[in-house]
Amino acid sequence: MPGLTALWGRAICQRCWKLQRPSARLLTSLTGETDRFNGVTVDVEQVSESLHDKEFHNLLKNSLQKWKAEEISAAWLKIPIQYGRFIPVAAKFGFQFHHAEQNSCLLKLWMKEGGEDKTPRFATHQVGVAGFVFREDTQSVLVVKDRKSKFSYWKFAGGLSDLGEDIGDTAVREVFEETGVRTKFQSVMTVRQQHNQPGAFGRSDFFFVCRMKPLSYDINACSEEISACQWMNIQELHEGSKSVAPITRRILNLALYGLKEGFHNVDLYAEDMESIYRGLRYKLYHRPYPHIAESK
Amino acid sequence: MPGLTALWGRAICQRCWKLQRPSARLLTSLTGETDRFNGVTVDVEQVSESLHDKEFHNLLKNSLQKWKAEEISAAWLKIPIQYGRFIPVAAKFGFQFHHAEQNSCLLKLWMKEGGEDKTPRFATHQVGVAGFVFREDTQSVLVVKDRKSKFSYWKFAGGLSDLGEDIGDTAVREVFEETGVRTKFQSVMTVRQQHNQPGAFGRSDFFFVCRMKPLSYDINACSEEISACQWMNIQELHEGSKSVAPITRRILNLALYGLKEGFHNVDLYAEDMESIYRGLRYKLYHRPYPHIAESK
Repeated sequence: MPGLTALWGRAICQRCWKLQRPSARLLTSLTGETDRFNGVTVDVEQVSESLHDKEFHNLLKNSLQKWKAEEISAAWLKIPIQYGRFIPVAAKFGFQFHHAEQNSCLLKLWMKEGGEDKTPRFATHQVGVAGFVFREDTQSVLVVKDRKSKFSYWKFAGGLSDLGEDIGDTAVREVFEETGVRTKFQSVMTVRQQHNQPGAFGRSDFFFVCRMKPLSYDINACSEEISACQWMNIQELHEGSKSVAPITRRILNLALYGLKEGFHNVDLYAEDMESIYRGLRYKLYHRPYPHIAESK
Repeated sequence: MPGLTALWGRAICQRCWKLQRPSARLLTSLTGETDRFNGVTVDVEQVSESLHDKEFHNLLKNSLQKWKAEEISAAWLKIPIQYGRFIPVAAKFGFQFHHAEQNSCLLKLWMKEGGEDKTPRFATHQVGVAGFVFREDTQSVLVVKDRKSKFSYWKFAGGLSDLGEDIGDTAVREVFEETGVRTKFQSVMTVRQQHNQPGAFGRSDFFFVCRMKPLSYDINACSEEISACQWMNIQELHEGSKSVAPITRRILNLALYGLKEGFHNVDLYAEDMESIYRGLRYKLYHRPYPHIAESK
């Protein structure tokens, strides 16, 4: 093992004079779990944090030779942030970041020669949700102006979904946080897909507008995010030609059509369903049809 | 500067005896760009890759003191993979991974004391798309069986969206890659949102099913991904009680309703629109209404 010499039965690095844990010397290759795509995933926490770079290099070299012989298709290294100095060591073998969050990152190396990289990439979309909140008694809509936006449009309250949050729940949460108005999810009215949007870190964006039933009416707007908030008559908002963005105008058109001909012409209905993956459930959004309408 | 001593006018580290580039010693703090949320983003490539950890520690310490005095709300470090050994140094100041991909990562430190972290998180969703491809002459649907799935269901061809790809384009691409059949996007039939799905790296999942018009009929299935592929009569598929997942059955119900009463009862219409962000466009999906139907 280059750079290491025995001293009182322990290993010491000749370059940095750090004592190595005996266990680190006993490893000859990294151990990992294989998956059904014939990939192997290694949690780097299995080695000592103080392992010398050169020794990690040798461990990884041996492991890659072994995996190559076993015809492994992809190698994955889960690296805790405090082990970050092993990242450039792995990069020298061709590893790249797959993704990272908080206190760890995942590196990936596609090992099949001549074959296209078949591993799934990390999440491609952020998700925004806004609530179209309509009160029938005054035929008015809840609208806000963003404090930090460079555009001075009236818009529907909303914001980004948290990880693991259903879009209807995002709408309830964001409308309440921004305006103080409590609401109930009714349906999805529209979905927008946009790429290269500012503030999305190079990822794409889905934006859902949900139809929400108000459960309270008093406004208590978030002064940090919102510069103005009010219930505005839907006709008045629709006729103010420059104060709304094209997507808001489109939703107002849809809503006016729904008010005239019935919202069953507009709505995407939501149902909670059981996944084929044991214990998981999902929300399915689509148009109502007679069998479904009857069974509700 | 602890651990460094002058030698022939250059700096040398007493621990690893590496020569430091003179330029690295001249920096007293990192320079970055501020954004409209009062955050600062630093590209770490501005320092030498061979800068000693201890010196990077001091640079970062000075920078954080300066930013604190300037009431900066969040500090971001863009770190190239070959500079990975600076990651644990930054982690000691509380930096965490925000995200990483390929050859660089972004670390983040929320600096406002007592305030909730207001920075947007990285992408939360992967996106899958399948194509419901129906040929009218034989009243049949294009279905496949996945080679690598543990479930032996007939399903519609599809797969994950690439970054920056519209859902309709994903459907065209995936149907062709898996079956060899060329198609044209017509409408969105349904959207599913699911969390904790296997293979999504802890992210959530959107799954869109698009109605596709076949432009060719001959099947040339991808033998690596698909174990079976055929045109199957829609009634026959609908009546096979165990060979499809609940979501597939639901789509068949929707499609049979559409065949009987018209697909205008089922479809979400797609329109290409101009974004408020200069030069950007987006796709908006919603129900058709008379004004829109007329202008098409």
